[in-house]
Amino acid sequence: MESARLAPLFSPRAIALIGASDRAGSVGRAILSNLTTFPGKVFAVSPTHREVLGHTCHRSVYSLPIVPDLAIIAIPASEVPRAIADCSTKGIAAAVVISAGFRENGPEGAALEHDMLAAAGRMRILGPNCLGAMVPKGGLNATFAGNMAHPGNIAFISQSGALCTAMLDWSLREGVGFSALISTGGMADIGWSDLIEHFGSDPRTRSIVCYMESLPDAHAFLQVSRRIAPRKPIVILKAGNTDAGARATASHTGAMTGSDAVFSAAFESAGILRVRNIEELFDIAEVLAHQPKPNGPRLGILTNAGGPAAIAADAAVSGGAQIAQLSHSTLQELDEFLPPQWSHGNPVDMLGAASGTAYGRAAAVLLGDENVDALLAILTPQAMTSPLESADSLAAVAARINKPVLASWMGGDAVAPARAALNRASIPTYDYPDAAAHAFGLMCEHSKLVSNLRQPPDDALTFDTGTAKELDSIRKSGRTTLTTLEAERILSTHGIPILESTAARSAAEAVRIADALGYPVAAKLWSERITHKARIGGVALNLRDAQEVRAAWHRIEHAARAQAGDNAFLGITIQRMAHQHGVEVILGSTTDSTFGPVVLFGAGGSLAEVISDRAFALPPLDTTSAARLIAKTRVHSVLSGKDGREALNVKALADVVARFSQIVTKTSLIAEIEMNPIVVSADSVIAIDSRATLQPAEQFTP
Amino acid sequence: MESARLAPLFSPRAIALIGASDRAGSVGRAILSNLTTFPGKVFAVSPTHREVLGHTCHRSVYSLPIVPDLAIIAIPASEVPRAIADCSTKGIAAAVVISAGFRENGPEGAALEHDMLAAAGRMRILGPNCLGAMVPKGGLNATFAGNMAHPGNIAFISQSGALCTAMLDWSLREGVGFSALISTGGMADIGWSDLIEHFGSDPRTRSIVCYMESLPDAHAFLQVSRRIAPRKPIVILKAGNTDAGARATASHTGAMTGSDAVFSAAFESAGILRVRNIEELFDIAEVLAHQPKPNGPRLGILTNAGGPAAIAADAAVSGGAQIAQLSHSTLQELDEFLPPQWSHGNPVDMLGAASGTAYGRAAAVLLGDENVDALLAILTPQAMTSPLESADSLAAVAARINKPVLASWMGGDAVAPARAALNRASIPTYDYPDAAAHAFGLMCEHSKLVSNLRQPPDDALTFDTGTAKELDSIRKSGRTTLTTLEAERILSTHGIPILESTAARSAAEAVRIADALGYPVAAKLWSERITHKARIGGVALNLRDAQEVRAAWHRIEHAARAQAGDNAFLGITIQRMAHQHGVEVILGSTTDSTFGPVVLFGAGGSLAEVISDRAFALPPLDTTSAARLIAKTRVHSVLSGKDGREALNVKALADVVARFSQIVTKTSLIAEIEMNPIVVSADSVIAIDSRATLQPAEQFTP
Repeated sequence: MESARLAPLFSPRAIALIGASDRAGSVGRAILSNLTTFPGKVFAVSPTHREVLGHTCHRSVYSLPIVPDLAIIAIPASEVPRAIADCSTKGIAAAVVISAGFRENGPEGAALEHDMLAAAGRMRILGPNCLGAMVPKGGLNATFAGNMAHPGNIAFISQSGALCTAMLDWSLREGVGFSALISTGGMADIGWSDLIEHFGSDPRTRSIVCYMESLPDAHAFLQVSRRIAPRKPIVILKAGNTDAGARATASHTGAMTGSDAVFSAAFESAGILRVRNIEELFDIAEVLAHQPKPNGPRLGILTNAGGPAAIAADAAVSGGAQIAQLSHSTLQELDEFLPPQWSHGNPVDMLGAASGTAYGRAAAVLLGDENVDALLAILTPQAMTSPLESADSLAAVAARINKPVLASWMGGDAVAPARAALNRASIPTYDYPDAAAHAFGLMCEHSKLVSNLRQPPDDALTFDTGTAKELDSIRKSGRTTLTTLEAERILSTHGIPILESTAARSAAEAVRIADALGYPVAAKLWSERITHKARIGGVALNLRDAQEVRAAWHRIEHAARAQAGDNAFLGITIQRMAHQHGVEVILGSTTDSTFGPVVLFGAGGSLAEVISDRAFALPPLDTTSAARLIAKTRVHSVLSGKDGREALNVKALADVVARFSQIVTKTSLIAEIEMNPIVVSADSVIAIDSRATLQPAEQFTP
Repeated sequence: MESARLAPLFSPRAIALIGASDRAGSVGRAILSNLTTFPGKVFAVSPTHREVLGHTCHRSVYSLPIVPDLAIIAIPASEVPRAIADCSTKGIAAAVVISAGFRENGPEGAALEHDMLAAAGRMRILGPNCLGAMVPKGGLNATFAGNMAHPGNIAFISQSGALCTAMLDWSLREGVGFSALISTGGMADIGWSDLIEHFGSDPRTRSIVCYMESLPDAHAFLQVSRRIAPRKPIVILKAGNTDAGARATASHTGAMTGSDAVFSAAFESAGILRVRNIEELFDIAEVLAHQPKPNGPRLGILTNAGGPAAIAADAAVSGGAQIAQLSHSTLQELDEFLPPQWSHGNPVDMLGAASGTAYGRAAAVLLGDENVDALLAILTPQAMTSPLESADSLAAVAARINKPVLASWMGGDAVAPARAALNRASIPTYDYPDAAAHAFGLMCEHSKLVSNLRQPPDDALTFDTGTAKELDSIRKSGRTTLTTLEAERILSTHGIPILESTAARSAAEAVRIADALGYPVAAKLWSERITHKARIGGVALNLRDAQEVRAAWHRIEHAARAQAGDNAFLGITIQRMAHQHGVEVILGSTTDSTFGPVVLFGAGGSLAEVISDRAFALPPLDTTSAARLIAKTRVHSVLSGKDGREALNVKALADVVARFSQIVTKTSLIAEIEMNPIVVSADSVIAIDSRATLQPAEQFTP
């Protein structure tokens, strides 16, 4: 069992606190006080104290009578490597390093961190520079926080210690419990993948909630998460991505790919639900932990007031859910006991006079409808309404039927007892019905994420050895911008359909080539320097005869030299004119600093960035994932033939996307590569223009 | 004073309750009980009771010793017209009709409503079918709700009575106060414009908050709101728009315009802030009522923890605010007293050890920076932190400086007293810092809306009389789809630059026209039936000689007849080929059922719907508003020459948009009209293709 590796950390039998102290306000004293709830043995270690808070102090771990599982270290950073060495020698399996002053403090601290890890041997370390860890059910509070969390089913892992403290304080007020509350600190050793792994197999944990600032172990994290996510929800709030956008890029793909979008694609590929604010983070964790998974997005809404239901319906639809179409028999059943002016449709507005019994009965009818995947129950205090009776009868129904039920009993004191009753029945309640509808949208998104999870294809192609050698020698020559011809060769070698170009080193040669191809032709700049050819006037389309080809040669030559000097012009390339009856798309890949290659697909052409119709995925993709990527864009409606349009060859396009995604995972030579446009027509898919840049030679680690 | 008209309703000196009752659970009893807080005279009217709850009953209003200002009516609907007639005869100025059973109940109820209005004379009526109205400061509770609201500065106007009750209950728990709480009911008489007018000049009201389901008096409402909004925030939650999208349309403009988007454009034109959920509605109303208006979007963030500040910065940027760039002197001043490892930038992370005094000092420095328009103060409970001292010193600073300050003291009990202190100082506090940042984004949006408010242009053009006659005779003939030539003529007559087309009734005539124009030319279907020419193969571009023109004639003829019968083909139109060096945009207008004509601008071409880059505005527009409309789209970055592109003639385009917007306001003959594409180049703006449909003759009311 993988999770056994962190057992000494989260389920220790005995603990040593290194840096025990009784100085008021000291971290050592706070931790020792917090350890009083720990049922196992606690040893205080201090070279200066004899006794601290009733614990006899040991001068070092060597004098401890037994080998504890866990050391908590709260001493100056400079002394930590030595202490870790002592612990390791003693045979202690894990440490929580509370001390700050490591990598976050510059080169000197980084050296200390390096020494600490070197001293650790097989010992596992949480931190440094962290608040510590709590396991409420085990009575373990290895932190210097002021309180112990309530026991519960959520594992909360945070890269911010301050957020841990604030969340702890909030959870105590709200009565939210945790299976564990972990402050990761600097993640010198134990990282995201270890923690997801551990809580993934921890039976007390029903959902894993993370606040993430960075992801050093991206690859391992995605692998582990993909395995855990189907049986345990993983929810992440990822912060700090507003700095993007400033970097220069050589492709549309680069310009259209922000690191934030890549994180979203990565989380999606691993079945992780990404939320956008703190409130959602805990709310949805509770809901996912306690409610059954919806079988679909069709929401039934039951209400005693029209307005709030209308708002909820809006929120549900804009959150990706659907308003269920009630079956005929449901409408008939409701007719039997609802007042004649009820809404006769979904939302089911029972009107103000609904009794508690009728409320429960209507809920049962709705949940019994096979067109309804989940129920949102709304109630406003009105003259004839009993909020508590309605809540009780709803709870009784919800307990019988295995579909999600969410509730919004609106108002203050008048509905407080009813809300408490719903909470006791594990029915999540919301101040506002639109918030409940939004939560259901997130539930649907999560279900879809998990059911869409796929293993990466293993029949992935191999990267051509000859091409790799050629690219390596280009970048060793100091050049990273490829010519269009070179970019095309990479793609066509690996089976991507390309509209062939032929290079001409003189105007006369260009005319010969065009004559042989047949008119009209396109002429494009051939350059090792300029990649955005069209923007500088390096593209001439629809050339109808030799004279026009000659004129294009001179125009392009002039433009290139004016833009980037004499060396920028090697000649022009000649292409048959692509036929016009197709839709232009873009397919590209760029290299993300955290995740490596990432694939972009979208509406193409020279205005691709403006059209801004794009979707991202982490390669490699099989054709099913490729088709899903395509289906996320708006241009998909044109490709698939909506509004009376002809359906285009989406299947062949998905094949191209899948193949392309596999190419870019099989080499680390390429920094960016894209085809724009690819023209998709009813019977073919063909790339008309391509560009690529290489990773600089010095960055390459084979 | 306009507002004096509703004074009898909201500031009555004496009230008559018609339908007084002491029956337990009756509405009449509930209202009479609620009227005990009213300081003026209350008369109970009932034909059957002698005395009710200590009030001697009058058999009718005629026997009242004085003329009350206000009647509250809670009797069966069938008796209401008679009661209203009595009140009117007696000279009562206003009535609140609580009774239900009018238009919402079908034709019979609608007839009763008609009778009621006819009987009212000059009397003003709130309702029918409403909860009533409260004016807490005046002790007026003319509702059957269980409680009286706290006095405050927010006027809440709701089209849902149930939402009123729920909000009242919620406000009592949260301590939120109201200047008035109004349930509009069916709005048979008093509508949105009356109420906005009244509370706009009510000195006790500092912000107006509305829950809206429909807007029957759209024109008057927008006019009044435009006048009120600059001095008093108007915030609206509009519900119930998810049903759109199903209707068939004859234009891109129609397909791309949802009624929800039109509401947004209308609110924007009147300086109204639209919010998307109930929570925002009240939150932002409080903030706008109590905080100074920000001078700009640049937010300073002060924090004692990095993680929450990073989340807040993300939320601020995605909400449209900016992270302020601190001045050099601010950085120097902060260096003087912050620990050496502070973040040295914005967000200003003071780290965990910040004292209350240092917190206040840092807040003062930030608010003193002329690059900072507002401050978001974040605090998490940490070992060395005093939440209350920090709150107090922040409040002292905020009181001195006239810039918005928002706060998030995160956590539960540990920060509760500090939050209370902030609330007392009118500093809005949030559980989560991202929610605070989001609120600041709304404040910025509101400021921008108000400062962008413009009077509609009064130099608007007049619609050509000849054209109007011609269009009217076309629709009287039963045809509503115009030919391209007819659509073009409307536009060119009113000064819109059009690439001229010439109609050909035979292939030979088409060739003669093309010869005269010079090749290449474009040929398009000429039809009174088919408006989406390209989709059915009715467009042929780049025809290079007579032979190609002849071939195009036959192709188009065949396609049109196959698609829509022999009558669909009148011939073809011939146009010079438009030059290619421009960007295609769409400009159109459609008729909204609430607001009338609405203008759409966006990226154009045959894929306009897919590109889905569009913005809406209510016409007429001057060139400044037209330029703002253009600037809202993504294609604007291309038009204005970003990324090294050539800047195009945006000024001429804005002129065309403004002129077009004025055309569509000057006639009610046109249902939809659009130009797609308009080609914008560096020196010109020209419409290449147009289409239009007319309002059917029977719908036209001159």
